[in-house]
Amino acid sequence: MSLIVQKYGGTSVGDTDRIMNVARRIKGFVDDGHKVVVVVSARSGVTNDLIARAKTLNPEPDEREMDMLLAVGEQETIALTAMALDSLGVRAVSRTGAQAGIITDEAHTRARITEITGGDIKKCLDENKVVIVAGFQGVDKTGNVTTLGRGGSDLSAIALAAALKADLCQIYTDVSGIYTADPRIVTSARKISEMSYEELLEMASMGSKVMQARSVEFAQKHNVVFEVKSSFNNEPGTIVKSEAPSLEDVVISGVAVDRNQTKVTVSEIPDKPGTAAEIFQKLGEAGIVVDMIVQNISRGGKANLTFTVSKDDASKAERVLDNVCKTLRGSNVCITGDIAKVSVVGTGMRSHSGVAAKFFRTLAANNINIQVITTSEIKISVGISLDDAEKAVNALHSAFELDK
Amino acid sequence: MSLIVQKYGGTSVGDTDRIMNVARRIKGFVDDGHKVVVVVSARSGVTNDLIARAKTLNPEPDEREMDMLLAVGEQETIALTAMALDSLGVRAVSRTGAQAGIITDEAHTRARITEITGGDIKKCLDENKVVIVAGFQGVDKTGNVTTLGRGGSDLSAIALAAALKADLCQIYTDVSGIYTADPRIVTSARKISEMSYEELLEMASMGSKVMQARSVEFAQKHNVVFEVKSSFNNEPGTIVKSEAPSLEDVVISGVAVDRNQTKVTVSEIPDKPGTAAEIFQKLGEAGIVVDMIVQNISRGGKANLTFTVSKDDASKAERVLDNVCKTLRGSNVCITGDIAKVSVVGTGMRSHSGVAAKFFRTLAANNINIQVITTSEIKISVGISLDDAEKAVNALHSAFELDK
Repeated sequence: MSLIVQKYGGTSVGDTDRIMNVARRIKGFVDDGHKVVVVVSARSGVTNDLIARAKTLNPEPDEREMDMLLAVGEQETIALTAMALDSLGVRAVSRTGAQAGIITDEAHTRARITEITGGDIKKCLDENKVVIVAGFQGVDKTGNVTTLGRGGSDLSAIALAAALKADLCQIYTDVSGIYTADPRIVTSARKISEMSYEELLEMASMGSKVMQARSVEFAQKHNVVFEVKSSFNNEPGTIVKSEAPSLEDVVISGVAVDRNQTKVTVSEIPDKPGTAAEIFQKLGEAGIVVDMIVQNISRGGKANLTFTVSKDDASKAERVLDNVCKTLRGSNVCITGDIAKVSVVGTGMRSHSGVAAKFFRTLAANNINIQVITTSEIKISVGISLDDAEKAVNALHSAFELDK
Repeated sequence: MSLIVQKYGGTSVGDTDRIMNVARRIKGFVDDGHKVVVVVSARSGVTNDLIARAKTLNPEPDEREMDMLLAVGEQETIALTAMALDSLGVRAVSRTGAQAGIITDEAHTRARITEITGGDIKKCLDENKVVIVAGFQGVDKTGNVTTLGRGGSDLSAIALAAALKADLCQIYTDVSGIYTADPRIVTSARKISEMSYEELLEMASMGSKVMQARSVEFAQKHNVVFEVKSSFNNEPGTIVKSEAPSLEDVVISGVAVDRNQTKVTVSEIPDKPGTAAEIFQKLGEAGIVVDMIVQNISRGGKANLTFTVSKDDASKAERVLDNVCKTLRGSNVCITGDIAKVSVVGTGMRSHSGVAAKFFRTLAANNINIQVITTSEIKISVGISLDDAEKAVNALHSAFELDK
């Protein structure tokens, strides 16, 4: 008998038929003798409908009221899921975030979990009830409803799994796991059976939308083993855990691509301490996240700074940088257009040499020009032309034998 | 400066346009220097949608989960209303039933209010904020969400007005007040400007759907003066309060009709103590409410018992009574068909003689046959043929000069 925390996303509970399917799946675990805590999201579409209604009334709705409004979505799903289980003869009880003791700070719409008391969840489990908890929401210490921001329901599930010392945490979604590459690009992409938190974090940071980084980081910090799998079939998914001995044999776990980046160059910057810091501070103040930074010394004590930003932030970044350049005599901003960021990720890089060599040899053999390079301990990323992205991903996937 | 509690029903907040209209109305009171607490219902249609979704999953949903589900409707409205006020520059904050300290017993879907703490409402009012409270819902002492049943939002408003010692409680609805008769039947019907709790209770018990009896009874018990008025215009409504000296001049407040009654006669009942009690007990156990009871002694120590039940309960009542008659030798059940119950109501009856005489003289002059009569201190009701109902209501309305 295990204690399992399961999380079902918005598409998995999108309508009453799907909620009934989720209930049948939960019943299977109950029938096998497990104790189950279920975290659910709002039905897909509900949150967007609520936001649209709010914006009709107020283009900039108060964030506390926004949380009060959005919490409604999950509250509907927990009650419906409990009713569906009851109709299958499974005793179930719903709990809002507040009732489940998911305590957060007061940062409405993007609250951080400060504590999980669990409320009376353990007592309910002892009474052989399935407990259905509203994901994405919590309560601050003065009793205001808060929400956790994007990917909040995953975080609710992983945090509950940690607090309840669950044996397993299952993240049910509309994809059946994490793949060695996007199957729409690489036809021979395979599902990864096991990977480390760090690898998934590197994947997530490259636009792989399976999970938000904060949930993976929380799992890593509290050592919560979780499985990403589909709620629409019974295939095994991808298990994510600490770097295990078995993982070391695998050099590279996957190839990822992010086509949503724009390359920005600030040229002829006075090469003195604090200049880069000033540039990045202004971008940070404008809420712009910077990725893939490269600095080169040019002639005459001047430097060029190249980095990438999200395509959506490109024009805002240009405005900010134009202002900064006015204070930096002779500097220019150049937005050189959208690029693709292609990366290989694998904890095996730590112990295996030759990964970088194979990486660049493969791109060269395919005549792909590299515009930016960044690396981490377990990742190599390059910025290349959007036109080359598909060719690069396929070539790397094959070169690192990910299809084997 | 007054403290006003306002309640807006489901049609008044039916869509974002209407919510904005409600916000403008509230702003008017704030601009006039009043402190305002607002109780809102779910948008019309939302509760029915939620119930339909629940029944798809479970024909007999657990009542605790039903309350968790239905509470969503009002929670959406409070947040949207607060946002609408904010967009008009009025500071507002929303509170769920639990946050407003509306404490109830544990009778899910029909909970009774046991205590109102008010939460931090007074503090918010002191900070010049409008407080928007979710109607219809509360919380039991162990933290479960409860709902108050039909007419629950009116009850929330009146109970809050009592707890906060409000100067006035306004019940905004889709009718502009309480009328001397149904304007669809009596073209000369007038809006009543003031009436007593008892009169409204007698009206309510006759199918006048403006307010549920429990809310009026609560107001009476705690002496909460309230006004029933329309949210779609600015006309004065009907003020409901204790019997005041000024009310005594008015003999009759209104004429009401209920066309949803069926007359039942149980004949040849042994005329001995306890027989009627047994009959009514069996009906009560079957959940059937009995109205307008008349007993006549027939020949040979046998009695006839006539009463009315709701048309919807008629066939169930017949089954119950057939069983009872088997134990009462020689008795028979006779369902004599649907009738109309026509009543005149007025606290003035207490002090004015001749009301009954005028009542029966009027019906006789119009050749209307009376099948059952019941009276209370402030009401005379008769059961008559459905065909005569309209004629009777108009004749009585005119005879008691309600059109003047």
